Amino acid sequence: MPTFKVYKGSEDGYPKESTTTKPDELVGDNVLVKITASGICGTDLHHRQRDVVLGHEGVGIVEDVGPQVKYLKKGTRVAWGFVTGSCGHCLLCLQGEEVFCRERCIYGFHNVDQGSFGSHAVWSEAFLHVVPDSISDEDAAPLQCGGATSFTALEGVKPTDTVAIMGVGGLGHLSIQFANKLGCRVVVLSGTSSKREEALKLGAHKFISMADYKPEDFDDEWKINRLLIATSVLPKWEILLPMLAPKAIIYALSVSFANLEMPYMPFILDGISVKGSLVATRAVHREMLDFAAFHGIKPVVETFPLTAEGMKEAMDKLDSGKIHFKAVLVAK
Amino acid sequence: MPTFKVYKGSEDGYPKESTTTKPDELVGDNVLVKITASGICGTDLHHRQRDVVLGHEGVGIVEDVGPQVKYLKKGTRVAWGFVTGSCGHCLLCLQGEEVFCRERCIYGFHNVDQGSFGSHAVWSEAFLHVVPDSISDEDAAPLQCGGATSFTALEGVKPTDTVAIMGVGGLGHLSIQFANKLGCRVVVLSGTSSKREEALKLGAHKFISMADYKPEDFDDEWKINRLLIATSVLPKWEILLPMLAPKAIIYALSVSFANLEMPYMPFILDGISVKGSLVATRAVHREMLDFAAFHGIKPVVETFPLTAEGMKEAMDKLDSGKIHFKAVLVAK
Repeated sequence: MPTFKVYKGSEDGYPKESTTTKPDELVGDNVLVKITASGICGTDLHHRQRDVVLGHEGVGIVEDVGPQVKYLKKGTRVAWGFVTGSCGHCLLCLQGEEVFCRERCIYGFHNVDQGSFGSHAVWSEAFLHVVPDSISDEDAAPLQCGGATSFTALEGVKPTDTVAIMGVGGLGHLSIQFANKLGCRVVVLSGTSSKREEALKLGAHKFISMADYKPEDFDDEWKINRLLIATSVLPKWEILLPMLAPKAIIYALSVSFANLEMPYMPFILDGISVKGSLVATRAVHREMLDFAAFHGIKPVVETFPLTAEGMKEAMDKLDSGKIHFKAVLVAK
Repeated sequence: MPTFKVYKGSEDGYPKESTTTKPDELVGDNVLVKITASGICGTDLHHRQRDVVLGHEGVGIVEDVGPQVKYLKKGTRVAWGFVTGSCGHCLLCLQGEEVFCRERCIYGFHNVDQGSFGSHAVWSEAFLHVVPDSISDEDAAPLQCGGATSFTALEGVKPTDTVAIMGVGGLGHLSIQFANKLGCRVVVLSGTSSKREEALKLGAHKFISMADYKPEDFDDEWKINRLLIATSVLPKWEILLPMLAPKAIIYALSVSFANLEMPYMPFILDGISVKGSLVATRAVHREMLDFAAFHGIKPVVETFPLTAEGMKEAMDKLDSGKIHFKAVLVAK
């Protein structure tokens, strides 16, 4: 039986080469994608010791299509992200909220023989997105999960809103760019001032180093309507809450298994909300790709070869917080 | 100088009779209201030892109007609640979100010589609401804070949503009625089964006693889209979260000075939100009164005389959780 190369999690936490059966003939709306690039994301570190094919920010070229594929053709450049299926019949699917479908077709749990760390992957056409021509493979990859997550957390902002991004990393540096192009005032909250210049270059209008922050210097004009927490640790609420405008909405983007704990009274007195969101629905994902293409929004990437060695190097660097700002594996 | 009678908080925690100056001539849009009834609310217990006039669920008759009063006339029945003023000029005021105005004209902090525990009060016309004819004084009082808070927490629900009310008390018993008339499926979560019959009579379609609750008996059909926590203690999240539908919105209505603490992953995986809200804007307050009048929504009240003795008795009973369901002071 023909196979293709994939990389799975392993006991030592580094991807090991393995194989997945390559279908002799594709069935249904299945599409065989030859992978050209894959982003690496925090979630990949969570699954690194599991016997599943790793990677969920995949980009590639359609190599073959099943009999029920409608729009994709051999040679089309496509990409996929964290969600790769849904039942298609439940209320959430019918509402276009398939990311919350109870079938939970998400990375690490659905179809774990496929992933973006490999030479190929087979996915349903319905969960593949055409990559706009102006976005390169390596730039497209981080948009599939990081970009989707950032863009969703900005849904419903008004161009007159002030958006604060806490943390300039994989999610943060994309959020800054999206918020800027959405017309918002963008303020970056960072631990130190080391990322000031880069944040301003990415589109921040104001940069606050929390190490040097004095509440009395905070100008009310910059009160935050939407706060995206893109750091893995929660902020010091006693400092942060007074920076929020009434009715502010907080999104904590980084996946954390800890409890969320915060003072409750400001929620009531200022009508604050905390909202959870999971990547992007397909509709929002496609809008995000179009928006990124139109406005020239690009991740800042460090590339590594799409090999076991490349993965090891990239994952170590990501794990120690040294990636600037997204690691992308690129096939030769 | 003429005065009128008011009751203030005192060291021993029981209202003491005092006086407030009665203006010889009302200025601006001020309105002198002769109080006929006042609800008692949890917040009154918070302020009971402070030197402020107590009470913020006031109902009465207009006795006199200032020169700039436009619509109210002597004899009109009016009511007021937790918010009695705003700057009128800031962005929040202009957006109709005056409850979040930075002037914080809220009970216990704004104009503390006035309150609903007394014979009269003077307020700006702009923050007085005309009481619909079909609502009695004693029924109108609890709607001014409890009703406003419940109704606001139901904003944006769809008639096809399942609304869960946790706790059948002052806020809960009003929320059940509103949610029912908004067309929603209403499920009540209560500590024991003691309030089952009454909850069903108020409009609950399903009643769950948490003491007897078995997760395996929970029917997915009843997954909760909107959860109103109307108890003073937070729920056991490990039991409650699996009862929520994806994208559920949680409102914790009872004022608590504790931290909010809950597991974070369900927020992300199920797109859950926690929303804070503060009573109702004036626009929503008026819609609430109309809605209550039209649908015959009435609080279940226990009345006490609007005297120091009545207040003492009512506050003791409220403090020990024995009020069924709202205490109302009624003037003779």
